[in-house]
Amino acid sequence: DVHTRPRVFSVWERYRHRQAHWFVECIAETMGVFFYVYAGVGSTAGFVIGNLSNESISSVLQIGFAYAFGILFALITCGSTSGGHFNPAVTICQVIFRGFPIKKACRYIVFQILGAFLAGLLVYVQWRVNIRATEAVLHTEGKWDAVMFTPQGLAGIFALYAPAGSNLGQVLLNEFVCDFLIGLVIWSCMDPTNFLVPPSAGPWIVSFSYAMCIWGYSPVGLSTNTARDLGTRLAVMAIWGTPAAGGSYAAIAALTNIPATILAACFH
Amino acid sequence: DVHTRPRVFSVWERYRHRQAHWFVECIAETMGVFFYVYAGVGSTAGFVIGNLSNESISSVLQIGFAYAFGILFALITCGSTSGGHFNPAVTICQVIFRGFPIKKACRYIVFQILGAFLAGLLVYVQWRVNIRATEAVLHTEGKWDAVMFTPQGLAGIFALYAPAGSNLGQVLLNEFVCDFLIGLVIWSCMDPTNFLVPPSAGPWIVSFSYAMCIWGYSPVGLSTNTARDLGTRLAVMAIWGTPAAGGSYAAIAALTNIPATILAACFH
Amino acid sequence: DVHTRPRVFSVWERYRHRQAHWFVECIAETMGVFFYVYAGVGSTAGFVIGNLSNESISSVLQIGFAYAFGILFALITCGSTSGGHFNPAVTICQVIFRGFPIKKACRYIVFQILGAFLAGLLVYVQWRVNIRATEAVLHTEGKWDAVMFTPQGLAGIFALYAPAGSNLGQVLLNEFVCDFLIGLVIWSCMDPTNFLVPPSAGPWIVSFSYAMCIWGYSPVGLSTNTARDLGTRLAVMAIWGTPAAGGSYAAIAALTNIPATILAACFH
Amino acid sequence: DVHTRPRVFSVWERYRHRQAHWFVECIAETMGVFFYVYAGVGSTAGFVIGNLSNESISSVLQIGFAYAFGILFALITCGSTSGGHFNPAVTICQVIFRGFPIKKACRYIVFQILGAFLAGLLVYVQWRVNIRATEAVLHTEGKWDAVMFTPQGLAGIFALYAPAGSNLGQVLLNEFVCDFLIGLVIWSCMDPTNFLVPPSAGPWIVSFSYAMCIWGYSPVGLSTNTARDLGTRLAVMAIWGTPAAGGSYAAIAALTNIPATILAACFH
Repeated sequence: DVHTRPRVFSVWERYRHRQAHWFVECIAETMGVFFYVYAGVGSTAGFVIGNLSNESISSVLQIGFAYAFGILFALITCGSTSGGHFNPAVTICQVIFRGFPIKKACRYIVFQILGAFLAGLLVYVQWRVNIRATEAVLHTEGKWDAVMFTPQGLAGIFALYAPAGSNLGQVLLNEFVCDFLIGLVIWSCMDPTNFLVPPSAGPWIVSFSYAMCIWGYSPVGLSTNTARDLGTRLAVMAIWGTPAAGGSYAAIAALTNIPATILAACFH
Repeated sequence: DVHTRPRVFSVWERYRHRQAHWFVECIAETMGVFFYVYAGVGSTAGFVIGNLSNESISSVLQIGFAYAFGILFALITCGSTSGGHFNPAVTICQVIFRGFPIKKACRYIVFQILGAFLAGLLVYVQWRVNIRATEAVLHTEGKWDAVMFTPQGLAGIFALYAPAGSNLGQVLLNEFVCDFLIGLVIWSCMDPTNFLVPPSAGPWIVSFSYAMCIWGYSPVGLSTNTARDLGTRLAVMAIWGTPAAGGSYAAIAALTNIPATILAACFH
Repeated sequence: DVHTRPRVFSVWERYRHRQAHWFVECIAETMGVFFYVYAGVGSTAGFVIGNLSNESISSVLQIGFAYAFGILFALITCGSTSGGHFNPAVTICQVIFRGFPIKKACRYIVFQILGAFLAGLLVYVQWRVNIRATEAVLHTEGKWDAVMFTPQGLAGIFALYAPAGSNLGQVLLNEFVCDFLIGLVIWSCMDPTNFLVPPSAGPWIVSFSYAMCIWGYSPVGLSTNTARDLGTRLAVMAIWGTPAAGGSYAAIAALTNIPATILAACFH
Repeated sequence: DVHTRPRVFSVWERYRHRQAHWFVECIAETMGVFFYVYAGVGSTAGFVIGNLSNESISSVLQIGFAYAFGILFALITCGSTSGGHFNPAVTICQVIFRGFPIKKACRYIVFQILGAFLAGLLVYVQWRVNIRATEAVLHTEGKWDAVMFTPQGLAGIFALYAPAGSNLGQVLLNEFVCDFLIGLVIWSCMDPTNFLVPPSAGPWIVSFSYAMCIWGYSPVGLSTNTARDLGTRLAVMAIWGTPAAGGSYAAIAALTNIPATILAACFH
């Protein structure tokens, strides 16, 4: 005869099942963030090292394209599993406007930052020979202290630093306007009534909104994404220690995009 | 019992309702123009400042891509609200060929110029540290007067100036041919019988027609859009005063695209 | 009572009607060739003049993109009117494989060459100030005779010249392989059973096949299209006289693409 | 009366028929690999020769675009005939996960390598004048031995060499991560349940996944494809002899992508 299992077992099983699903979703968020950070930071590495060693390896144009296609691949490969946030600001907007559960949102954000952190470390390891060689040149030229933790320095490959002479108001504004415009494009592409954007075109358009901002505004300092900025900043601190943290600019760069994206969602 | 409201109230209400709708449409036109001017002028800022300081930040190729995607985002985000003119010449063509109301057209044009003006000011503020630094270098090198209000100078980021040695006939022709070709592409993409251009591809193709003209003909002086040119020229005059106006070339650059677009519409 | 018109009238009318239709088709071919020659040669002008004056205006990458989008616009705006040949080799293939009338083909080819000729002249006029200034510099440096009619010289903007040291076999091979691959892409995109290429994607893919060949093989001398080459060569001879003709290399460049395209059609 | 043919005849006929079909499929694989190797290596030739002679002909950005469109054309023209592997790693995955016959897989791989070999030889012949001229300069400057068989040398156009100072672990990791990500994109695009990727968009997205890896990671040494690497390495050895083989790095570059692609298929 059939005798029922103690209730605790099925609770446990259901919990584990939910856990597994959560875990797959979180891995998808991690992979997605990993994808575009890996794509973009790789080209940035070429740009910074190329400039420091007078070689032409990369360009702002190339960095923009690399991020754009990285975001496209993130949306294509992982978007359908996790919903394709890949950005704490988008996750927070989903909590506010579409009732996304807060607990899940927190997990998403942690795993997004993890993805950026892992990508940052991997890019460092893959470019290590070139980074070390360039660092050695900076040391012998006595420029290491002045250049290292600036947008043109090697740590600037991974994390954003305040450009020389910039004030925080300007940095805040730069960040805010770009993130607002990106947010506007994202919400327009997610709008199912927008007949100019079929589902298959949305990821392309969202991706290139980042490229556009990188082309025009990365030279004056741009972060656009808390996960990307915080994750790679942790990676860079793991490599070069606390001087790589970047001060109050770091906090602004890491957080401005959140209210900007929320405002764009409201405006739309 | 129901007693009817005085007629004046409902007239007023209807008027206000129409006003609000007009206002939303005008904001959409402003946002659209803002989008592509912001995108394009940001990359132009990088190009001009990079050339003056011997850094490689941007390129004509990048400026073309930036404008193209800016126009794409304008059409995607604001096109369905306002009809997606974003260009006084297109608005005037709609008046002539499709019975668009003249009063509304005037509002559209004013708000288009406003969008370009706001974008110009914002780009200035976001790039101010770099612009000021480059201006200081020009002053110390004694080049400020000679370079500032030329296509290679800092004011050339925002407004178009006559290239050295060019005559107005050539500028007129350059402007006219490019605008005619862009107009031809626009009318082809808006033609619903054109099976090579599904609705979702139209914005992409129109956007890249601007990029093509920028790549080939911006080095000899190109405006393509009265709103863009007049709006950013006003912005640049608000920043550097009347010497930034640019003389008779300004008038030609600002207005040539209108007859060219009309002619393209006829030709099509 | 109705009395029938003399037969000669209706024959004449039908003839005129056919004429008008032919004329519209031929104008479409002219416009199409004009479009991509204008797009591509404009960027080439920036590249050649930029290299001669040590400015960074254009690049091989940009020339490739410019031609690609020029071809796209040609197909979009004029393709549905005339069938979108824009290339004598394609017209000849249509005669051989799809029974396109020979008389009509001859007209098409003449009007294709006319389009390239007009585009070449217009580009010259629009860039004239810069071309004249660069010519003056070449004269004062005594380099005019050595550089002018080479791929790096000002005439090289419009027509193709044999690169220094190249032999005709190599040029022939370069031309042939590129044109064969472009032809293969064209016939694949025109194949209605190819489910990877919907009608709206075909023009994009064909366009970028030219870009790919320009990126990889234009530095060693590439023409790809008899109309483009012959038309702009006539333009350049109208400007600088017979030394601009370019010798036996000219004949090869102008004609190799025809057998290559035919072979690609067979292969497919 | 009908008398039956000896059985040997029909066996032979069926064999020949199968042979012919196999042969067409194998030619399609050869052509496909030829397409993207020809596209990419041509732009690489411009980049390497341009750098050695201080001319700006190509860039890492351009090489990425060239490979991307080369892969797109391969998929468009030959994909429907042979299944569009063009990569031994994809063929091996098809054997493991989708029951692709092993014998056929071996033929595919041989013909893939043949395609890359032919493309390598053709690129050499088409660029020979420029390659010889650059080699002569390297000889007179006494740099030939030091530069020739490095990523910056002329043999580096065709085959991959270990960058100076790199260790094999780093090269292995670089190769593995890139190939894993490309594999992930390929399997996502082949997944028919992925509504973000219609069949016509798949080839574009797969193509640009290679571009992204080239932009970010080719400066530290990237092969991504056994056929491409082995085929062009054989071509380069046919040209410059055994010193062009490249040692243990060659083996790693040529084979790492296979387990990486398999792992990506598992992960997906």
